Amino acid sequence: MLFKVEMTVNIPASLPKEQADAIKAEEKTYSQRLQREGKWLHIWRVAGLYANVSIFDVADNQELHDILTALPLYPFMTISVQPLCRHPSSVNS
Amino acid sequence: MLFKVEMTVNIPASLPKEQADAIKAEEKTYSQRLQREGKWLHIWRVAGLYANVSIFDVADNQELHDILTALPLYPFMTISVQPLCRHPSSVNS
Amino acid sequence: MLFKVEMTVNIPASLPKEQADAIKAEEKTYSQRLQREGKWLHIWRVAGLYANVSIFDVADNQELHDILTALPLYPFMTISVQPLCRHPSSVNS
Amino acid sequence: MLFKVEMTVNIPASLPKEQADAIKAEEKTYSQRLQREGKWLHIWRVAGLYANVSIFDVADNQELHDILTALPLYPFMTISVQPLCRHPSSVNS
Amino acid sequence: MLFKVEMTVNIPASLPKEQADAIKAEEKTYSQRLQREGKWLHIWRVAGLYANVSIFDVADNQELHDILTALPLYPFMTISVQPLCRHPSSVNS
Amino acid sequence: MLFKVEMTVNIPASLPKEQADAIKAEEKTYSQRLQREGKWLHIWRVAGLYANVSIFDVADNQELHDILTALPLYPFMTISVQPLCRHPSSVNS
Amino acid sequence: MLFKVEMTVNIPASLPKEQADAIKAEEKTYSQRLQREGKWLHIWRVAGLYANVSIFDVADNQELHDILTALPLYPFMTISVQPLCRHPSSVNS
Amino acid sequence: MLFKVEMTVNIPASLPKEQADAIKAEEKTYSQRLQREGKWLHIWRVAGLYANVSIFDVADNQELHDILTALPLYPFMTISVQPLCRHPSSVNS
Amino acid sequence: MLFKVEMTVNIPASLPKEQADAIKAEEKTYSQRLQREGKWLHIWRVAGLYANVSIFDVADNQELHDILTALPLYPFMTISVQPLCRHPSSVNS
Amino acid sequence: MLFKVEMTVNIPASLPKEQADAIKAEEKTYSQRLQREGKWLHIWRVAGLYANVSIFDVADNQELHDILTALPLYPFMTISVQPLCRHPSSVNS
Repeated sequence: MLFKVEMTVNIPASLPKEQADAIKAEEKTYSQRLQREGKWLHIWRVAGLYANVSIFDVADNQELHDILTALPLYPFMTISVQPLCRHPSSVNS
Repeated sequence: MLFKVEMTVNIPASLPKEQADAIKAEEKTYSQRLQREGKWLHIWRVAGLYANVSIFDVADNQELHDILTALPLYPFMTISVQPLCRHPSSVNS
Repeated sequence: MLFKVEMTVNIPASLPKEQADAIKAEEKTYSQRLQREGKWLHIWRVAGLYANVSIFDVADNQELHDILTALPLYPFMTISVQPLCRHPSSVNS
Repeated sequence: MLFKVEMTVNIPASLPKEQADAIKAEEKTYSQRLQREGKWLHIWRVAGLYANVSIFDVADNQELHDILTALPLYPFMTISVQPLCRHPSSVNS
Repeated sequence: MLFKVEMTVNIPASLPKEQADAIKAEEKTYSQRLQREGKWLHIWRVAGLYANVSIFDVADNQELHDILTALPLYPFMTISVQPLCRHPSSVNS
Repeated sequence: MLFKVEMTVNIPASLPKEQADAIKAEEKTYSQRLQREGKWLHIWRVAGLYANVSIFDVADNQELHDILTALPLYPFMTISVQPLCRHPSSVNS
Repeated sequence: MLFKVEMTVNIPASLPKEQADAIKAEEKTYSQRLQREGKWLHIWRVAGLYANVSIFDVADNQELHDILTALPLYPFMTISVQPLCRHPSSVNS
Repeated sequence: MLFKVEMTVNIPASLPKEQADAIKAEEKTYSQRLQREGKWLHIWRVAGLYANVSIFDVADNQELHDILTALPLYPFMTISVQPLCRHPSSVNS
Repeated sequence: MLFKVEMTVNIPASLPKEQADAIKAEEKTYSQRLQREGKWLHIWRVAGLYANVSIFDVADNQELHDILTALPLYPFMTISVQPLCRHPSSVNS
Repeated sequence: MLFKVEMTVNIPASLPKEQADAIKAEEKTYSQRLQREGKWLHIWRVAGLYANVSIFDVADNQELHDILTALPLYPFMTISVQPLCRHPSSVNS
């Protein structure tokens, strides 16, 4: 089941740089693991912003919730979620 | 070059049904041709809405503009455009 | 899988009263059938407004989309959708 | 009398983790007591967000106010309230 | 039980003047009857606008809904509702 | 001359509790004195929020400004003001 | 007593040009009479828009309401009102 | 050339009172000098708010920018600017 | 003196195509004359929208107003105006 | 390829003045280098605000992203991006 998720990251200046870098490294590892598992289908950077547009393919709402709230950068993110389905004009089945 | 485009369709009740159906059929043909050409990478229906989330892969802003304004349903659409780029955490090159 | 759906109805004054009444009667029948099937779990009127707050229990995003777009009053509705999941503090399993 | 209440929680990073955990535990106890008393009819998690959608069944506006402002997490919440009533299409009496 | 209700009226230019005047006369009669019954406690005009701020004292959400949706001008109104309760600093009991 | 004033209070967590309590006590005294003088006609709590809806009866805009900016909680308030006048449907003269 | 009033005019294309011209001429006459009487202190055009920023000096909220709702263009205006008072830094008494 | 400028002041609680008072005194001196020079034509307090509505008469956009950014309270202000011109209904030349 | 002007065009479906085409042709002629005169410095299409971003170089607010309100498409435009000045980091004098 | 970028700067009061000045100096150098390279086509100050309107001419979305996120003031900026293309009425080829 597909969801579009938009994440905007806002790391406060008060967070020490090493700590921020460590969290970002964990985030990357976590994201790439989910991408390889086929649950995080797409991730694009929004040009000019510290933000991404992502497509998730999960079993249900609960799995989406568990994946998102476990993001290492989750405490610094503003997140919006939109449930998607197959478009009748899509050439993909 | 990638763009996220969100389209919401609002066909006025005053448009005769046959005319609306003809425009929708043209829209489908047009969309599928662009999908097959690799320019309209993804199209998803937003659950519950007469709206879609799409990803375009075009040469430049001008080509995006030409493709969107030639949509048969364009006069009945509200459109938002966001330029995307590769995300550093993406596992795809 | 649960979704909160909020629907606001706006029937144009130009729609003949008999036609509007017929659509509302179909809407009621349709809604009650889905309620009895256990897919439309809850429906509440928002006090003072021609609007409702509903909870749907469906198989997936696609089924939600199919149910909502088949609403007889759908062409006259503004709809917002939010995916829900079990709350960890809920006493219900 | 029914109310839909939406709560979004935002605990500042400056609150020590033990203190935050203690408040969350109190919140859970408080919420479950009210659920068992039949005043907090439903609570759902919004997928991807630290937020919930709840339905309260209370004697009047005052009781709703007293319940909400006594929430242990109340100082960290953004709250919206909508009075509900029975929907004429509801199959429940 | 108290509610603040804000109503903004927007009568379309296409409605014949006599019809509009008749509806406004009914609205006045209806409003004054409810005021005399003690259900429509206060009504004030917002300076410069075709809008009012009102306070209702009703048995419950359902009675509020029934009163508002029976307003002769209801089809031409935008309405917002806020549940109120006694303020702890009020000198009135 | 009547005004509707809506006040939302947001006391920062960094303000020591005794100081906050002292300011709230002053606020209550100040509000009740103005209520007894007939200048602060009504004050209602908005259910679920640390906010009130108030009606003031003052000589002019200047008096309203002086009263509001002298509120002990003023530095912690978001305030909106709307000038009111008698409604032609009001049963009160 | 001073008020800032912002008016945006939106005359529908369906209004015959002679009728629109007649209403605009009445509006001008009405506005200039009030300016000469000292009640409509200032009127400025907002550059690029069919809108104005005005300052009124009236006895009270009621007089402001009566003046504004009697504007010949009132049915085609969106209006916002803000009560003003003397600024402590003003060099005018 | 005329501009409407709206300024809302928000001095953080962390600024020591003497420092805030000194800045406000400078602001008053600065504002009154510009008023006497005929560049700051009008300044009104918005009733109930720490905000003003001002009219500036300057040579060009650059002079407006220089005047505003030199305001002693500028770092604590939210500012909006609207270019004005003579209104065709104005009785002033 | 420079201004950024953003124009969004919305031609109603009810306007006959020949009439719309005639107005667009006039608009083009008018725009190009002003561009050649050096008053309409830049005009760019916003990708995907029937909208433009323009920079005007005019004597004052009044000239900007006269130019914009004389646009053949003006009755079908939503317009926003922002006064600009030279940026201190600009390499152009 | 052209983009309109709007940047609003908000440097927190807690940043030491020398540090802020150093960052601003770097920003100026960086901006002027890009202007001389022909990538930052235009930069204008918005009158009255610590904000600019800029036009970039870059190879693609990725180059725009790299340029913007490398701005020395980037951590203190709110940024909006709009892809542009040649306007059919432009007199420039």
